[in-house]
Amino acid sequence: MNWMEIDRIIQNALAEDIGPGDLTTELTIEPGHRSSARLIAKADGVVAGLPVFTRVFALLDPTVSVAPSVSDGDAVAEGSVLAALSGPTHPILSGERVALNLLQRMSGIATITRSCVDAMQSDHTRLVDTRKTTPGLRMLEKYAVRMGGGTNHRYNLADCVLIKDNHIRAAGGITPAVTRARSGIGHTVKIEVEVETLTQLEEAIGAGADIVMLDNMDAPTMTKAVEIVDGKAVTEASGNIDLSNIKETAATGVDVISMGALTHSAPALDISLKFD
Amino acid sequence: MNWMEIDRIIQNALAEDIGPGDLTTELTIEPGHRSSARLIAKADGVVAGLPVFTRVFALLDPTVSVAPSVSDGDAVAEGSVLAALSGPTHPILSGERVALNLLQRMSGIATITRSCVDAMQSDHTRLVDTRKTTPGLRMLEKYAVRMGGGTNHRYNLADCVLIKDNHIRAAGGITPAVTRARSGIGHTVKIEVEVETLTQLEEAIGAGADIVMLDNMDAPTMTKAVEIVDGKAVTEASGNIDLSNIKETAATGVDVISMGALTHSAPALDISLKFD
Amino acid sequence: MNWMEIDRIIQNALAEDIGPGDLTTELTIEPGHRSSARLIAKADGVVAGLPVFTRVFALLDPTVSVAPSVSDGDAVAEGSVLAALSGPTHPILSGERVALNLLQRMSGIATITRSCVDAMQSDHTRLVDTRKTTPGLRMLEKYAVRMGGGTNHRYNLADCVLIKDNHIRAAGGITPAVTRARSGIGHTVKIEVEVETLTQLEEAIGAGADIVMLDNMDAPTMTKAVEIVDGKAVTEASGNIDLSNIKETAATGVDVISMGALTHSAPALDISLKFD
Amino acid sequence: MNWMEIDRIIQNALAEDIGPGDLTTELTIEPGHRSSARLIAKADGVVAGLPVFTRVFALLDPTVSVAPSVSDGDAVAEGSVLAALSGPTHPILSGERVALNLLQRMSGIATITRSCVDAMQSDHTRLVDTRKTTPGLRMLEKYAVRMGGGTNHRYNLADCVLIKDNHIRAAGGITPAVTRARSGIGHTVKIEVEVETLTQLEEAIGAGADIVMLDNMDAPTMTKAVEIVDGKAVTEASGNIDLSNIKETAATGVDVISMGALTHSAPALDISLKFD
Amino acid sequence: MNWMEIDRIIQNALAEDIGPGDLTTELTIEPGHRSSARLIAKADGVVAGLPVFTRVFALLDPTVSVAPSVSDGDAVAEGSVLAALSGPTHPILSGERVALNLLQRMSGIATITRSCVDAMQSDHTRLVDTRKTTPGLRMLEKYAVRMGGGTNHRYNLADCVLIKDNHIRAAGGITPAVTRARSGIGHTVKIEVEVETLTQLEEAIGAGADIVMLDNMDAPTMTKAVEIVDGKAVTEASGNIDLSNIKETAATGVDVISMGALTHSAPALDISLKFD
Amino acid sequence: MNWMEIDRIIQNALAEDIGPGDLTTELTIEPGHRSSARLIAKADGVVAGLPVFTRVFALLDPTVSVAPSVSDGDAVAEGSVLAALSGPTHPILSGERVALNLLQRMSGIATITRSCVDAMQSDHTRLVDTRKTTPGLRMLEKYAVRMGGGTNHRYNLADCVLIKDNHIRAAGGITPAVTRARSGIGHTVKIEVEVETLTQLEEAIGAGADIVMLDNMDAPTMTKAVEIVDGKAVTEASGNIDLSNIKETAATGVDVISMGALTHSAPALDISLKFD
Repeated sequence: MNWMEIDRIIQNALAEDIGPGDLTTELTIEPGHRSSARLIAKADGVVAGLPVFTRVFALLDPTVSVAPSVSDGDAVAEGSVLAALSGPTHPILSGERVALNLLQRMSGIATITRSCVDAMQSDHTRLVDTRKTTPGLRMLEKYAVRMGGGTNHRYNLADCVLIKDNHIRAAGGITPAVTRARSGIGHTVKIEVEVETLTQLEEAIGAGADIVMLDNMDAPTMTKAVEIVDGKAVTEASGNIDLSNIKETAATGVDVISMGALTHSAPALDISLKFD
Repeated sequence: MNWMEIDRIIQNALAEDIGPGDLTTELTIEPGHRSSARLIAKADGVVAGLPVFTRVFALLDPTVSVAPSVSDGDAVAEGSVLAALSGPTHPILSGERVALNLLQRMSGIATITRSCVDAMQSDHTRLVDTRKTTPGLRMLEKYAVRMGGGTNHRYNLADCVLIKDNHIRAAGGITPAVTRARSGIGHTVKIEVEVETLTQLEEAIGAGADIVMLDNMDAPTMTKAVEIVDGKAVTEASGNIDLSNIKETAATGVDVISMGALTHSAPALDISLKFD
Repeated sequence: MNWMEIDRIIQNALAEDIGPGDLTTELTIEPGHRSSARLIAKADGVVAGLPVFTRVFALLDPTVSVAPSVSDGDAVAEGSVLAALSGPTHPILSGERVALNLLQRMSGIATITRSCVDAMQSDHTRLVDTRKTTPGLRMLEKYAVRMGGGTNHRYNLADCVLIKDNHIRAAGGITPAVTRARSGIGHTVKIEVEVETLTQLEEAIGAGADIVMLDNMDAPTMTKAVEIVDGKAVTEASGNIDLSNIKETAATGVDVISMGALTHSAPALDISLKFD
Repeated sequence: MNWMEIDRIIQNALAEDIGPGDLTTELTIEPGHRSSARLIAKADGVVAGLPVFTRVFALLDPTVSVAPSVSDGDAVAEGSVLAALSGPTHPILSGERVALNLLQRMSGIATITRSCVDAMQSDHTRLVDTRKTTPGLRMLEKYAVRMGGGTNHRYNLADCVLIKDNHIRAAGGITPAVTRARSGIGHTVKIEVEVETLTQLEEAIGAGADIVMLDNMDAPTMTKAVEIVDGKAVTEASGNIDLSNIKETAATGVDVISMGALTHSAPALDISLKFD
Repeated sequence: MNWMEIDRIIQNALAEDIGPGDLTTELTIEPGHRSSARLIAKADGVVAGLPVFTRVFALLDPTVSVAPSVSDGDAVAEGSVLAALSGPTHPILSGERVALNLLQRMSGIATITRSCVDAMQSDHTRLVDTRKTTPGLRMLEKYAVRMGGGTNHRYNLADCVLIKDNHIRAAGGITPAVTRARSGIGHTVKIEVEVETLTQLEEAIGAGADIVMLDNMDAPTMTKAVEIVDGKAVTEASGNIDLSNIKETAATGVDVISMGALTHSAPALDISLKFD
Repeated sequence: MNWMEIDRIIQNALAEDIGPGDLTTELTIEPGHRSSARLIAKADGVVAGLPVFTRVFALLDPTVSVAPSVSDGDAVAEGSVLAALSGPTHPILSGERVALNLLQRMSGIATITRSCVDAMQSDHTRLVDTRKTTPGLRMLEKYAVRMGGGTNHRYNLADCVLIKDNHIRAAGGITPAVTRARSGIGHTVKIEVEVETLTQLEEAIGAGADIVMLDNMDAPTMTKAVEIVDGKAVTEASGNIDLSNIKETAATGVDVISMGALTHSAPALDISLKFD
């Protein structure tokens, strides 16, 4: 995590939400008024983002105190108190919506990730995210995946080569694509190749791919693919995987399962701030 | 819509996704290579964000051509072609993920909004969003709600007074809160008051609220509330409303129904870019 | 007020004024040198911007102490001490000009606003500003208007519909313009229509305008207009109103008088920093 | 002028004024609607800022055409047409206020500057501005002074040493202050010393000041000061100079007269956009 | 390369160099004046940065034409013409310094990199850079290394794990450090371990390091290290390597040699713009 | 120095280097782990940038303590301890590279500047830098030159007129160029003219140049030039001056020698952070 960047995200969000001022709070409540409140889960789930939630208020007014009673990554039940807040009422009310919007989204992602990890029932296979994240919030969303028990696929287009069908076609095949990539990258960068058939898989392995993405294969084909690869590369299952078939997919022995839905379709976890 | 601000959102998203460079495309594909592709809906839904999708490529390379075949707000069926793209392959591949991330999220919001609007079966009641939007993307998400057939609640804390329970408590009651707000705001700003009981409702109306938010009331109470208000204010239903009870809620005669889930929990609409 | 945004304004102003460094102070004065000074009004007026003045120094060096002896909105006489400063000399001298430039402009606006409010001699009519503010300083200038006793017209183009002659012409008339606007806006947004004749006024009222702007009408016509409106909309007088005719204008019974000169032509209030 | 910086000023101003969108224009006028308009002076004055006015529309929509009929620095009479505009109505209406706010302020400054230059009736003395400019707009305001016939004092604290009373006191006198400054600055930087008495003046000249600021001296003293300096430094008159005494001040033979009011208190020149 | 980010770097550099305006050019040369010029190498070297040089002028004025006669990565001799420029004189003169500053630095880096690559006399070993780059210019400097014939080490702290002595000490040893890192990273990230002895080397290999950095080893030890690793990891030589010993280092059989001096101490290549 | 601007430089550098997070430190070291370290010179040189080095850690974590044992401008010997650090290990490791990159570059510049100043063996002549600085770091590099004993040439294109050959040609000669510049600039700005011959020199002096740049003249010509100028202007030697001929150049009696190599080709001073 890069907290200077997180500060920038929060400041941008506060500017968007407060605009030229919180009319209601400024006009109806005395500046000196103080409040205390509790942050409460309104549904079962996994919490992620409490330090971000806390930071929203610190940026608005360092005298607001936020005392978390759980930690990121903890599973919580409906009704649980996640944190206690106290301090001047103005910044608490003006920051409440942004703080909750971030926490609820991050916790929603952690929650769905945990469900999928649990559903895999595998000691071997790891669940990873994709680049299908909310524009502007990738750092927070990939952190939330980790809090849910997943790990992260590449962060951006610069930190891993991932040769997809369009690259293969434009490059004239898997082998030339891998060869060109290998000659240009540094020694810290891996090459992943997306394959749709076992023939492509064999070409990718032969060309020296570090990772093979098994795209939209059915379970029996994937099992065969894992046998073919035989440890010569990391195997990643991708495409149309959800809670209903994730256990079956993991059972094929793939090393990694990637799911875009962890970030692009996770519903927010319902969390609210209750004033005392 | 403010396109200079949308450009900033897109540039921020591209910086996040491309980082110091799209290694794969730069290394495997000749700079002069050209492609054409079609944008295809992989599920039924309502499209929103095509001009944003188009703008992503314009910012990367103005020679990429994007020709939409549908318009924002159109309902589309699985398999529909939404647009045709052609131009240099590099910017198409480097911008694809950001363009799709934005389009899929916006279309997801438009789709769920349309479902709810249709489910209301009301000529009178309007469906509106809330401030429970993704931090940094509010302008785009509120636009998507409009494309789905909804209208927008206030944009930020500065363009409408909304007196909630915490303001009421801190101000010492509905009447003093409304009075203070009225004396400080300009003549273009409305005052909304959140009420949980019919007693509170009567106080809010008496104090001159322009809008009353009926918070978490059951349908019979809400019906009564609408009668009490009798046109003296706009009535807004809020809290725990979803597809299952939205028709019943609209049937109470409220003017407006607000739903946070339109933006905080809409799954992305599945859309993909198919190269020819 | 949004203090994060105000910080951005101040930092921008300090960057503009200090450039790569305050040569004179750095070269002629020892880093450890300390000073105290008093902030003194050199003319009668109304003060606005003391917290902004204070914040300039806090951003440069939190150890500078600024102790105000009056509050924003207070009328002060020539020679009054507005605040006492003490601390390291370097940041006091390097920040002095920016702090004064902001305070003098804001106080100038508050002063002219107070004069106009006093001149209205009305319990009913309110004085409001316009969007004719200094680019980049709108938040501060609208605040200064409030400190002078005025209230604010809409903040920007997004928080109120204001249908002017050009919109009317392009839309094909007042009624279609209002109808279109009404169908697109949310329930928190008001519609104002600018009218130049009583015929237009009647059409605007009939179309359901929330506010009517009586543009450049003489006093007798305006009196008639107020009668016609009869409480069905807010009435706003606009155009060629100044100290010489504001009392007469208010006497027509309009609800609101708007004056661009409050912000576009207010002379700075003379205030200076006197070192002890 | 630095046009990349001017673009930043304009974009900041448009963001402030448009917010999330120009509701009225978007809702009442068809996107394809086109208009033509004339920019008209509503008072006599000197124009400054036409290229900035033009740039506002270019940034919003490059297809808006602005054809100026006068140039910056031209004196214009009430009723003069300054430019003709044509193009799509949306960007013309959405940019109008920002474009006029900038043009009116800049022209107001050019107008007052020209009046003062004319009033000096001197071939020798030059009129200059100060750092009492609007925070964020210094580049534009100093340009406007030049268009009015003035020249510019230093741009910021880094491009000239200006030793004022507080520096003198903290440094232990004029001579040590000038000596320290001289030893630290590069060979392109001048040293100016503010003096309040003829004794101070002699010390400043003796210490090698390049410029002496004669602060708040009456005309006879200033005449004597000019004699004492006798070409060994540039003489600058400062403090309490306005239209009423500027001729008398120039007659003392000072090289330069500086006036803060050129920028801090210039009323906007009345200019409006008339649609055809 | 990410051109939107490069634009930001250039705009920042132009703002720094032009400040509020290029006084000399604005005052001495007519706006319509046109020039042509040639870009000439004043020393032998390898060129890098011509597209960046070109982009500086495109951002200032798109009508300036820059026609390169060589390509990035080309070796050029003293006196060679690198490009021909023509267009309006104002932007050519105002942009010249920034364009040259960038080109000379990038070409300096490419030149020293090429010398080192040539000196290695190895088909096997690759030369890479480090994170010892100029703050703010990393993207351009790592590109210049590639143009010189090197490849890049990790871009930042997020795209490869590199466990150094301090991490080892704080983690309690190489094995626990590698184990912890492995369990937290995604499948696209490699782990590099810095080792100073052959004992450490064996522990790193045993712990599963993907890359081992042989820190400050003499050639015989390094040769032994390469034998020990025996293809189980990538070997990287680091520390005190320069032109005098790089051939000997490569001869040990290491896969990669990293040199901070490529970026932190490369003298600029002398290049100048000659007006016709 | 402008510390708000320096903070921006540091934050930009940290964003570049840390990216979405320091994987190694986050994964291998406990958050509560603390360290102490010493900053050590690995070569003889002059230190510059310790306050910047310190600020890097203050921005990451204010609880990191940095205690310098030398001051900027001090000459240090290989092996000297420059500062002692202690605090949480995470920010020390995450900020180390950026802090060292800045300090090493600045110290490299101070070191080469000091060598040249010492080599001049002149009480009269001053050594100055140029605008050939690293884009984005000019403020820091010009400060480093001062710490090495040099002074600064103009900061940017706006704070001094410098008429070069291209301006002269486009303006039609030295005299018209100087005349035009003089009539447009304020009284705080100097005019420098670049001359290549003694004839040009005489024209420049006659035209009233404040400074003359003697471009690429040999020592005898330069001596003659100094005689011709005879105190009527500042004389600056420029072009092809290095350690080998700087003493001879200074001996001609010129007032100032400018050297681009001080900033564009200074090797970094080797400095490292040693953990205890």
